[in-house]
Amino acid sequence: MTKKINVSAAILIIGNEILSGRTLDTNTSTLATWLNSIGVKVCEVRVIPDEEKVIVDNLNLLRKTYNYIFTTGGIGPTHDDITAQSVSKAFNLKYEIHKEAFKILESYYKPGEFNEGRQKMVWMPEGAELILNPTSGAPGFSLENVFCLPGVPSILKSMLGGLKNKIVGGEPILSHTISLRTVESEIASSLTKVQEQNQDIEIGSYPFFHAGKLGVSIVIRSEDQVKIDRCNSQILEFVNEKKIEVVER
Amino acid sequence: MTKKINVSAAILIIGNEILSGRTLDTNTSTLATWLNSIGVKVCEVRVIPDEEKVIVDNLNLLRKTYNYIFTTGGIGPTHDDITAQSVSKAFNLKYEIHKEAFKILESYYKPGEFNEGRQKMVWMPEGAELILNPTSGAPGFSLENVFCLPGVPSILKSMLGGLKNKIVGGEPILSHTISLRTVESEIASSLTKVQEQNQDIEIGSYPFFHAGKLGVSIVIRSEDQVKIDRCNSQILEFVNEKKIEVVER
Repeated sequence: MTKKINVSAAILIIGNEILSGRTLDTNTSTLATWLNSIGVKVCEVRVIPDEEKVIVDNLNLLRKTYNYIFTTGGIGPTHDDITAQSVSKAFNLKYEIHKEAFKILESYYKPGEFNEGRQKMVWMPEGAELILNPTSGAPGFSLENVFCLPGVPSILKSMLGGLKNKIVGGEPILSHTISLRTVESEIASSLTKVQEQNQDIEIGSYPFFHAGKLGVSIVIRSEDQVKIDRCNSQILEFVNEKKIEVVER
Repeated sequence: MTKKINVSAAILIIGNEILSGRTLDTNTSTLATWLNSIGVKVCEVRVIPDEEKVIVDNLNLLRKTYNYIFTTGGIGPTHDDITAQSVSKAFNLKYEIHKEAFKILESYYKPGEFNEGRQKMVWMPEGAELILNPTSGAPGFSLENVFCLPGVPSILKSMLGGLKNKIVGGEPILSHTISLRTVESEIASSLTKVQEQNQDIEIGSYPFFHAGKLGVSIVIRSEDQVKIDRCNSQILEFVNEKKIEVVER
């Protein structure tokens, strides 16, 4: 496999429970961290309700815009789990029993326990490839560049290992953090100059409160360690000049 | 003020730190919970990078689609804080010094400390209304139906009180949760029937793991308490029939 550069992704979080505020979404952070580590940059995240038309429209837009799309949620056994049927509709494919998934769940459950609700989880778009689930049996699936994962964070995490060979990333996106005992406004103009001199590097500035003290973390991100190092030196130069304490570098 | 029903909102999370996975977004949950309590339903959340064109395009689409838009992030003093200038561009308005904001920050800081970086925070779109910040001085702002808030969760939370009179919600969206010692597949078909009989009610089913035990929370959501109660009774009916333990109701 040839490594491509600038590999992009979007995450589509499907679930009313996130939009109502009841559940805090942690899957974005899990997926984004993992994707970064294999050289895939998350460019956009959308959280949408469990509504077929909304899922279909968003999916059809995003899958044409980015290299990879990851959906989370909506692949369980209940009436509000409509991701698989929505993906089928988006791709204009039959929604049908996936034979391999059926076999997996048939042998996963004790005799007599593979009931109607559980059987719903083997209905997928025609031609879907399975994403194995080492935690709770029911597989996710992928279709072209769309990867459908469950919403339960621990189950999602356990399935990422099985995705590795299916996703071709670019160079991993490296990052370096410098944490300073200062406030943003003290370093804003110096940091702007460094950003101007390093336009292909992403420099972020994030205030923090920790153990009752204020600080700022500067995060430098790039695929190129040499560029990160150069940028880091330029930042430490003005930090030393201003006699700002470095908490962590 | 007349109460409207079906008041909609979108949240636009602006920040590379969320997309990289470095920072877990908690503002969506905070905002959505608060908006629900005042009768505003969050229909969509988007997380986008600190890029002017992306911010402008998303904002112009969302503000025409929903009653209210809330942005978080990008209103601090550093180079990557570009929300105010992007909002100005989206509305085709001048990006200028807000006199009231200038006065607030001039008196907030000690003499000589209202430096160049801090002064950047008083640049806003022409005609912006301030959203006061009881935590750290620098105000957010609103323009028509767009409300721009900071990214730091504690500061954002402290500013919500000041928004109350500016937002007209519908009936608060009520919710009731029934937590059961079961798995989703055991209740899926019965729950589907209840949903079919109560089509204007939102019924969600969410598996949980707590203290080593599996369970399912059923969440019923509606503006109408009578409808919630009826739905609740129907659910408890099949729960009793199936002899499922109710953990919490």
